[in-house]
Amino acid sequence: MSDFGTLESRVRRKSLLSKVCKAEDTIKYFQAGQNLLWSGFTPAGYPKEVPIALANHVKANNLQGKMKFNLFIGASVGAETENVWAELDMIDRRWPYQTGKNIAAGINAGRIRMGDKHLGLFAQDISYGFYTENGRYDIGIIEVSAITEDCGLALTTSCGIVAEAINLCDKIIIEVNTGQPSFEGMHDIHMQQKPPHRAPFLITEAGSRIGTPYVPCDPDKIIAVVESKRRDKGRAFADEDDTSAAIAGHIMDFFTHEIKKGRLPENLLPLQSGVGSIANAVIGGLAKGPFSDLTVFTEVLQDTMLDFFDGGNLKVASACSLSLSEDPGFPRFFDNWEKYFDKIILRPLSISNAPEPIRRLGCIAMNTPVEIDIFAHANSTLVGGTRMINGIGGSGDYLRNGYLKMMHTPSARPSKTDPTGISCVVPHCSHIDHTEHDLDCVITEQGLADLRGLAPKDRARKIIEKCAHPDYKDQLTEYLKIAEKECLAKGVGHEPQLWDRAFKMHLNLAQNGTMKVKNWDVKVDLCE
Amino acid sequence: MSDFGTLESRVRRKSLLSKVCKAEDTIKYFQAGQNLLWSGFTPAGYPKEVPIALANHVKANNLQGKMKFNLFIGASVGAETENVWAELDMIDRRWPYQTGKNIAAGINAGRIRMGDKHLGLFAQDISYGFYTENGRYDIGIIEVSAITEDCGLALTTSCGIVAEAINLCDKIIIEVNTGQPSFEGMHDIHMQQKPPHRAPFLITEAGSRIGTPYVPCDPDKIIAVVESKRRDKGRAFADEDDTSAAIAGHIMDFFTHEIKKGRLPENLLPLQSGVGSIANAVIGGLAKGPFSDLTVFTEVLQDTMLDFFDGGNLKVASACSLSLSEDPGFPRFFDNWEKYFDKIILRPLSISNAPEPIRRLGCIAMNTPVEIDIFAHANSTLVGGTRMINGIGGSGDYLRNGYLKMMHTPSARPSKTDPTGISCVVPHCSHIDHTEHDLDCVITEQGLADLRGLAPKDRARKIIEKCAHPDYKDQLTEYLKIAEKECLAKGVGHEPQLWDRAFKMHLNLAQNGTMKVKNWDVKVDLCE
Repeated sequence: MSDFGTLESRVRRKSLLSKVCKAEDTIKYFQAGQNLLWSGFTPAGYPKEVPIALANHVKANNLQGKMKFNLFIGASVGAETENVWAELDMIDRRWPYQTGKNIAAGINAGRIRMGDKHLGLFAQDISYGFYTENGRYDIGIIEVSAITEDCGLALTTSCGIVAEAINLCDKIIIEVNTGQPSFEGMHDIHMQQKPPHRAPFLITEAGSRIGTPYVPCDPDKIIAVVESKRRDKGRAFADEDDTSAAIAGHIMDFFTHEIKKGRLPENLLPLQSGVGSIANAVIGGLAKGPFSDLTVFTEVLQDTMLDFFDGGNLKVASACSLSLSEDPGFPRFFDNWEKYFDKIILRPLSISNAPEPIRRLGCIAMNTPVEIDIFAHANSTLVGGTRMINGIGGSGDYLRNGYLKMMHTPSARPSKTDPTGISCVVPHCSHIDHTEHDLDCVITEQGLADLRGLAPKDRARKIIEKCAHPDYKDQLTEYLKIAEKECLAKGVGHEPQLWDRAFKMHLNLAQNGTMKVKNWDVKVDLCE
Repeated sequence: MSDFGTLESRVRRKSLLSKVCKAEDTIKYFQAGQNLLWSGFTPAGYPKEVPIALANHVKANNLQGKMKFNLFIGASVGAETENVWAELDMIDRRWPYQTGKNIAAGINAGRIRMGDKHLGLFAQDISYGFYTENGRYDIGIIEVSAITEDCGLALTTSCGIVAEAINLCDKIIIEVNTGQPSFEGMHDIHMQQKPPHRAPFLITEAGSRIGTPYVPCDPDKIIAVVESKRRDKGRAFADEDDTSAAIAGHIMDFFTHEIKKGRLPENLLPLQSGVGSIANAVIGGLAKGPFSDLTVFTEVLQDTMLDFFDGGNLKVASACSLSLSEDPGFPRFFDNWEKYFDKIILRPLSISNAPEPIRRLGCIAMNTPVEIDIFAHANSTLVGGTRMINGIGGSGDYLRNGYLKMMHTPSARPSKTDPTGISCVVPHCSHIDHTEHDLDCVITEQGLADLRGLAPKDRARKIIEKCAHPDYKDQLTEYLKIAEKECLAKGVGHEPQLWDRAFKMHLNLAQNGTMKVKNWDVKVDLCE
């Protein structure tokens, strides 16, 4: 495929053709301090021409730090937009997720005020009016495939928060992407009212369609239509390695066991799989695995989802975003368009990540944390408890509401000086995004700890036994032993911790480059 | 009311009359190690005769520690049952919530293995087969008001997990409570299938009824029918004091503000209010307040709910449990039966606490934590991070899914030696049950911190300013200042913490009886 149709053929609402202009022509609408809503979700379906033109304008006119915006988007977007904006000091507030070296640096340096929110909550909370003084936003920038005669927006590779945005923005700029095929028909848009007038989502399987393919838009709000030929800058993932293959293997074995026990149907339940290399490998494992007739109900579809379809095991996939790599993902997708198109449903974030369908369908939720602790709390957001990576994303939406709530991580990672300097199993997480009340299973390349029905101390022993890296097993066991002893002596032994020493591994990493420590019995007096 | 009908009139399934026996006659069915499911939710609707007979049996025969059971109940039950069982060392495992001095002592001493789970998850997870080896339970003990001709169970003051229990137990013992009126007709029982065959809950307002008043039960499973005249031993709450009145006042002001801003309807949205004195006072405030035509969609109805109805502001209340005090709550309720009966709907825990209706209806969630931290994480379960109180209960079910997610607490509590020795606002919670991604507002008697849309450091400043006790404002500000400075120097300033000192207040409390500390700038070297 290479001829994707003209702008004129894509814009079927002919009155809008008078609003066609170049990206540069929209710069006049922007001024510092505005609240902006964009389409996009992970590097998929985000506006490109206008943000890039604005960045060029700021650069050319030395407006760094003088033209800052508050940026609200369903999730992260491509680095050529938000990350360049961060580099040019064009972002004041950023909600609820982000990706990019510069933007992370800006957040951690305190220049960018970011808040990360469960994505499924964010989508509804903006519609409730929670993020700006009057609940309104100045400009929405929305990438579309096409515009229907009655001004329905056919979106591109993601739905994100567009359904909410078109009601919350006073002005809308449309980017029509003619650099790729039209995704018209892939989306299932269901417009919700606010409480107390909300109705059930009548989704009873991953493939249910409950709405229309279009986001209805008031044509009078559209102030500009810009043609774009830029494609999504999706990341390619690392190939499967021994660690991710071992993790995928443990998960396959566990599924087989659960089917035998009668706790999972033969075709499992709808799968949710987070973003990243391990999640990608797990889906790769399922593509080759023994289970067939599977369905996916998730947030983001990544490259291995194509293998999953190709292998014949996957019937249908529902997501908020089709987030393939720029190469080889999208070219492969476009070359086999007919094979995939009808099997994919893209939904608004407020539905893909809503507790209602996730719980009703009984999703199997699988996500990767930064670290987990022995009692099964998980840190998904802040390295060392203080440094923001990307945000919580949708992990909580799925882990709280799924049928099985699973987290997978390597047991250890390299520090600068020690190949296993960072243990991903710690006495106490330095930041907690998912609690012990949420998780059913923890998986590392070492094994799978099935925590269902276990009390805290039993969980701790199981996690250390099954999941900790051999370099850390003894020291974690020693910590637990001493914590149990010292706490029991005070009659507070339900979930033993030593608050003068719980972060010793983290502090040692910061100071000495490794989490390997000894002498847990040395008490520290912090009192006065 | 004093004549509540005979056992014969209550048991309309006449074939069951042959199974009527004394509680003592059921002892033969019990043996150590069994998995038991009980009706009950908070001290409401739990079996009494059989558990008390079993306890007497253990005591009389010196079987302490030799007759231990695994006890799975919707939530806590009356102290005369589970707490006495704990005293007699009759409990091995206890899920997912409990109340009582002895049972808490047993858990903290490590004799009783307890796990606390979001109650809404627990109800579904037992039906998934997650808590026992084969997913089955030996005996269910269920309190009912009546049994219909076709063996439908009309429950009493709570629904709890009975709808799940009758399918999971091999044997069922029924207690028919003739010591109080029959609650037949108050319950709305909807039997769910497991995924992937689950259907939507068609609840669109707090008062929606979607099922029948009865739990269908296989009569062949019923091995005994015992008459009981014992009433629920509900606790009375402390009268409203200045602190809880001030908290209620801040919440009323906030609601008024939100209505003005167009973010809440004039009759608010369905209210959820946690268990305890502050929650009780908030409902008391609403009973006297300016808002009318209100609805409640919650987990537990407490005494002030009667004031709320009497004041005329409350239309309807949906809950899992009618948990009134033994005196004056229940006598008042029984004396005004007609006034209240039709306005109350009792639902199964798996529906009262399900994310689906909570989010659809847009509940206003209000709960009390043990402590909150400056970044808006909350501890609901473990004092000092290690000592179990009751469990997380349903707080997470509502706080994650509500329209507004609010937590209220006194700003400080007395320690043994200092009237304000415990600050309920700390640098970092010693246990985290609700995360910064969940909470919208924190309220103490000092004020209300509206955290919506605030980045972590802005949240911290707001919480200290609005919520901290005056005795702690300076020291929390000082901690934040030093944490910001030290973290920024390392470029990790998104959510600043000092891991060598974050628990200094907690450690000082344990050692010196107060959280009042100084000298945050003194670093501690934990490394080797």
